[in-house]
Amino acid sequence: MTQFEGSHILSVSQLDLDAINTIFATANNMTPYALREKRTKVLEGAILGNLFFEPSTRTRVSFGCAFNLLGGHVRETTGMASSSLSKGESLYDTARVLSTYSDVIAMRHPDAYSVKEFAEGSRVPVINGGDGPNEHPTQALLDLFTIQKELSHSGMGIDGMHIAMVGDLKYGRTVHSLSRLLCMYKNIQFTLISPTELSMPDYVLNDIENAGHKVHITDKLEGNLHQADILYLTRIQEERFPSQEEANKYRGKFRLNHSIYTQHCKSHTVIMHPLPRDSREQANELDNDLNSHPSLAIFRQADNGLLIRMALFALTLGVEDKLKQYECPVNWYSRKGDR
Amino acid sequence: MTQFEGSHILSVSQLDLDAINTIFATANNMTPYALREKRTKVLEGAILGNLFFEPSTRTRVSFGCAFNLLGGHVRETTGMASSSLSKGESLYDTARVLSTYSDVIAMRHPDAYSVKEFAEGSRVPVINGGDGPNEHPTQALLDLFTIQKELSHSGMGIDGMHIAMVGDLKYGRTVHSLSRLLCMYKNIQFTLISPTELSMPDYVLNDIENAGHKVHITDKLEGNLHQADILYLTRIQEERFPSQEEANKYRGKFRLNHSIYTQHCKSHTVIMHPLPRDSREQANELDNDLNSHPSLAIFRQADNGLLIRMALFALTLGVEDKLKQYECPVNWYSRKGDR
Amino acid sequence: MTQFEGSHILSVSQLDLDAINTIFATANNMTPYALREKRTKVLEGAILGNLFFEPSTRTRVSFGCAFNLLGGHVRETTGMASSSLSKGESLYDTARVLSTYSDVIAMRHPDAYSVKEFAEGSRVPVINGGDGPNEHPTQALLDLFTIQKELSHSGMGIDGMHIAMVGDLKYGRTVHSLSRLLCMYKNIQFTLISPTELSMPDYVLNDIENAGHKVHITDKLEGNLHQADILYLTRIQEERFPSQEEANKYRGKFRLNHSIYTQHCKSHTVIMHPLPRDSREQANELDNDLNSHPSLAIFRQADNGLLIRMALFALTLGVEDKLKQYECPVNWYSRKGDR
Repeated sequence: MTQFEGSHILSVSQLDLDAINTIFATANNMTPYALREKRTKVLEGAILGNLFFEPSTRTRVSFGCAFNLLGGHVRETTGMASSSLSKGESLYDTARVLSTYSDVIAMRHPDAYSVKEFAEGSRVPVINGGDGPNEHPTQALLDLFTIQKELSHSGMGIDGMHIAMVGDLKYGRTVHSLSRLLCMYKNIQFTLISPTELSMPDYVLNDIENAGHKVHITDKLEGNLHQADILYLTRIQEERFPSQEEANKYRGKFRLNHSIYTQHCKSHTVIMHPLPRDSREQANELDNDLNSHPSLAIFRQADNGLLIRMALFALTLGVEDKLKQYECPVNWYSRKGDR
Repeated sequence: MTQFEGSHILSVSQLDLDAINTIFATANNMTPYALREKRTKVLEGAILGNLFFEPSTRTRVSFGCAFNLLGGHVRETTGMASSSLSKGESLYDTARVLSTYSDVIAMRHPDAYSVKEFAEGSRVPVINGGDGPNEHPTQALLDLFTIQKELSHSGMGIDGMHIAMVGDLKYGRTVHSLSRLLCMYKNIQFTLISPTELSMPDYVLNDIENAGHKVHITDKLEGNLHQADILYLTRIQEERFPSQEEANKYRGKFRLNHSIYTQHCKSHTVIMHPLPRDSREQANELDNDLNSHPSLAIFRQADNGLLIRMALFALTLGVEDKLKQYECPVNWYSRKGDR
Repeated sequence: MTQFEGSHILSVSQLDLDAINTIFATANNMTPYALREKRTKVLEGAILGNLFFEPSTRTRVSFGCAFNLLGGHVRETTGMASSSLSKGESLYDTARVLSTYSDVIAMRHPDAYSVKEFAEGSRVPVINGGDGPNEHPTQALLDLFTIQKELSHSGMGIDGMHIAMVGDLKYGRTVHSLSRLLCMYKNIQFTLISPTELSMPDYVLNDIENAGHKVHITDKLEGNLHQADILYLTRIQEERFPSQEEANKYRGKFRLNHSIYTQHCKSHTVIMHPLPRDSREQANELDNDLNSHPSLAIFRQADNGLLIRMALFALTLGVEDKLKQYECPVNWYSRKGDR
């Protein structure tokens, strides 16, 4: 079994099923704290170094709040300009110095494998918050956690489910990592829906097939959704295209709205999206007319990110069994239980 | 009476006199904590999402410190670049996601009504920290609170006072909001001093006159100040002008200094300014030779902003009656009572 | 003796030997807290205003974490764009307003003497975190503290030692400030190694010689290191050169690596560098092949910065004797004692 205390979380490939189940069980234990039904001061006095060398609002704030919810302080760095990296400093040096200042580090960086390189110089556990085109393991974990939670409402598990992935499957980092995690499970059916030019890369396809899963590939949305338990939509990753014009060729090709959902999906098909969704008229891959539909899991998915990140902090800092010991009341107004 | 707990604070127009008096009474209760005579941990463990999609040092730091003074954590976002808004995400989505991460949100955004739109998707109370040309309700409240406090020293109240507003009355958002608040009071005399091209908009003038107040409009400073109890100066809002040259035409037109004050004002006329004041030679609407004058209220005005923001957090989170219960000593050196 | 409580720390020239020894003794007392062997909540509820009007990762994060380690909150401002300074506000006004929001301020600014000017308007103690070409007193203190600690391992003191300073001695602010501090000690030998064009300024040389120290000036690295107890390397301050080409003329002129160290230095010569070191091939003033050498003190030097900054906060806020009184256990995993 994976030993979490004092370890880095750099890649989903370092996790086995046991490790994943430990993370998910810990994440579930975080629910009352995230909902402000209770609070815990278990990490009071601890410091998170939240190093975002590439900008990100959602992920950065989610890491920071997860740490605050456990009682800790957060010191933040955003952007490259303010960084010594631009003066020729190696990631090793940056890591040796900055890791003195905190008890754990969450890090995003535009370069593949940079977080791993940084971790080698760090004296404290490092959690990968996205290293460019390479990995974003907390997103993959929160996606998988959401699938498990949502399917459990209808008595289902991940083994044996049917997932449809839709959109930019070539550049969408989240579908690659999620697929990799799903290779640890059994007997899954994949329906991959994308423009031919943006189809799932061969190395991911090979992994899926080697795991014994079934794959159906198509470039049509309608007519291919009726068996899906999970519908995982993505936006066009415009920043990876040579130009806006090139990206525009694919934008808006697949659009899910209330009428298509009702016509083409099973009554309980769960709708997921890694967010942000592109709500501009020319894209609109997931229409606002589904906003109050009970199957729309996209905001619960984002909420789950908080639980996963709280769990990873608790595990790497070895406090997952001490949460209750440091509990205290919530004194202020909060919409408890509202999710 | 306005119900604060769990409510958004979006506009001064949502407040009646009762609500304003509740805010001011709560703000007064905050004084010993702001002065570090005592401290309270009533919001220990709570998280403020301080979302400044438009840059601001003073207001951002004031909101953040107000929350820290009540014992809470602050997670901050500054600028648009690092935001998903630039990838086509709606304010509704941003609000649904980011409001999971905190217990209350303070938000500034360059677009009018954007904060209201955001609040509709938020699960937690949202306080408007300025939505472009529209409103900046905490500034209006701190201005009114300052007027009330300063006048009380000479036994006066807001009803029946005389206020002179000077400078860029066309683009100065603070004088519009303050005027709107003053319409809830009785028998006020307004002297509005501005270049004709930068005079108070008609819709504000109509409100003032409909409230039964008296208005005198002029483009001369000297000779029009001798009756004012409050002198509210503003800078030229250069960012709203088509060019620097255009702004320069009006800069420096009205300048208050020690000799003009002594010659033209009553001995206790209170000098206010929303800050920043433009101290460059070509503008200098309020000279540094008044810095140690007891009637200069501009820094007390900024201090009052802290009290108002503390009050709004306490009220929207429903802890205004629990402050004393969570009191603890101040262990460190502080220039107690120094204001 | 220097009175710290409530005082600004603006320049090394305000400190006498007694003051320095007080700072160093306090810094030593901070060690168990910085190593997370214990923690203290002595500054719980206090607020640091961390004002970095010029970007800096290392120094900014070090100040912030030092304050968190003592239990306090940190409110941060980075960059000029988001500042009222760009709207013509004076440093005095900025100080009057921002100093209301915190109990102590750490400030960096690109202009010489700006921090002093700010301090004159501030109601709370201000610590200079670097004011452009002028001073960076916490760096000078941590350098001196490191020298004292490192030499003590071989039973030596600062009096009577031999220090070699290498590289850009003209623009390197740290070597100027360190030299000034060393003038308070006795009988030191300086070997100054730089390209002739980048040699130590005359006013620093005069101070050194007036203090009775011995100086040897050269432009060769090899052959001039064999007597040094301390080897203080610097990078080319490329941002001070008229062009990159001009800076490139000097980059890479002096390079220390394992073989040169072994051949030319005493067995215990301590290697220091203010960091960041430039690890690009064309510069590489200090090679990575020394990374695991016990004499390489550069990371211990950065660690010492945390201790010095904790000490300055404790002293200016008058809590240096209360640390133990507010001690509490460290609940989480940490690589205790690892330095």
